[in-house]
Amino acid sequence: MDFFSRMEDIVRGKGTSLCVGLDPRMEHPGRDPASSIVRANRRIIEATAPFAACYKPNIAFYEAHGPRGLEALEETLALIPDDIPVIVDAKRCDIDATAEAYAASIFGRLGADAVTLSPYMGEETVLPFLRYEGRGLFLLCRTSNPGAGVFQDLQIPAASLEASAEPLFLRVARTCSSWSDSIGLVVAGNDCAGLRAVREALPRAWFLAPGIGAQGGGAEEAFAAGAREDGFGILVVAARSVAEAADTRRADTRRLRSLLQRSRIRLRSRRRRKRPFSRP
Amino acid sequence: MDFFSRMEDIVRGKGTSLCVGLDPRMEHPGRDPASSIVRANRRIIEATAPFAACYKPNIAFYEAHGPRGLEALEETLALIPDDIPVIVDAKRCDIDATAEAYAASIFGRLGADAVTLSPYMGEETVLPFLRYEGRGLFLLCRTSNPGAGVFQDLQIPAASLEASAEPLFLRVARTCSSWSDSIGLVVAGNDCAGLRAVREALPRAWFLAPGIGAQGGGAEEAFAAGAREDGFGILVVAARSVAEAADTRRADTRRLRSLLQRSRIRLRSRRRRKRPFSRP
Repeated sequence: MDFFSRMEDIVRGKGTSLCVGLDPRMEHPGRDPASSIVRANRRIIEATAPFAACYKPNIAFYEAHGPRGLEALEETLALIPDDIPVIVDAKRCDIDATAEAYAASIFGRLGADAVTLSPYMGEETVLPFLRYEGRGLFLLCRTSNPGAGVFQDLQIPAASLEASAEPLFLRVARTCSSWSDSIGLVVAGNDCAGLRAVREALPRAWFLAPGIGAQGGGAEEAFAAGAREDGFGILVVAARSVAEAADTRRADTRRLRSLLQRSRIRLRSRRRRKRPFSRP
Repeated sequence: MDFFSRMEDIVRGKGTSLCVGLDPRMEHPGRDPASSIVRANRRIIEATAPFAACYKPNIAFYEAHGPRGLEALEETLALIPDDIPVIVDAKRCDIDATAEAYAASIFGRLGADAVTLSPYMGEETVLPFLRYEGRGLFLLCRTSNPGAGVFQDLQIPAASLEASAEPLFLRVARTCSSWSDSIGLVVAGNDCAGLRAVREALPRAWFLAPGIGAQGGGAEEAFAAGAREDGFGILVVAARSVAEAADTRRADTRRLRSLLQRSRIRLRSRRRRKRPFSRP
């Protein structure tokens, strides 16, 4: 089964579009940071497994601790129940034998179900990853930082007579999506206009939406702006809010899940109501 | 001393613009690939130290072997003489705390002198790396793969009335260079037109030029197209050719070094001759 069909089944079955980040920021790492990482992640995973559509460790936080940090990532992945997919957030960007080595590391060794990649070098970046069956790729499209627009907002002239000019992030979205059905996009959860624009361009694609507030603020708005007509097609990332909630009897995670669930129901009923007018 | 002044001193002192890649492709990794990697790298380093302006391990080839692979990278870096800078080719691309974690890993833990980064997310990607003093950053600009142009060649309308439209890779070059004097650019060594265009736009910047042929073919052309007026400002990468030559009494490395040295002499004398006419 391909990755996005699997995600759709999970989102439908569990009633959650929540992607739980596993980003251990060790402000006070102590003597054995790798063990602290695994302990903290175990708490998060135990608290969130019923509410998580998938998990997303950002590999940078593990690499920062060297070889033992990578071991901590492997130990963390072993704690995640088999029926919950893992997206390794790596934003890798290379070609040929080097991209093959990254794919061997992330899909081969780590056994991740999906990965994030950076599109700047073109299709050669994704090809070695596409050779692994049933995996998903999320290409950076629109990011959540204040300076994202310096390149992503550059206006690209129309590719054909029928088309019109568009910002680079939309061109990236269309082009990367055209490479394979296993390709989704990273679209910032704090940029509702961006989410709506990419959704309009790509009615079927899957989005990974990070960058919502530390307290989960904006998750509902991101969902409403980026979800497909059928209420699927978006994974809303919560990282800090969840890490903090894991220590406080999972209140926030439960709240986030139920909030996203309510959004889906509202979204679907609103779209059902709209249909007779928009498609007479 | 800043990284590029240091590079200029080394290139002048040793008479070489050669950047030696340390990219262990283990087609037959054997039972202990990490030890094989360190052994192979030791041979390359011993054979090339007199001819190398710097070394460039691509981290992907180490990550592919998991935590032990990262240890092999650390052991490799310890083998490189202190007076030869190391560029960790990582093409990282993230922001905020995540970019800080990558910088902590590459500049902090590994102690690299320079790094390669991908520009898609904007200035937030480079800021945490710039906080480490005396280090160099090479931003992806023009890459060597056949599909590089899909985004890099997109025409960007002029930014002002005085400017003219330009391809994305030139806009990336200008923008990234403007962020800091510690920023150089990755410009494919197999694309002489690209090298000339970026050099024309940025007469002073430093380039890292990978992608010349497996046998070192094209190194001289890349040098001639990308070097500054003064014959500095470009590091030509040889990886496979050097790895293979390390087993054959360094013939190829010596040949490459002397070839680049001859190119510099020819280039400088040619430019000296030209000057009276072009600047009367």
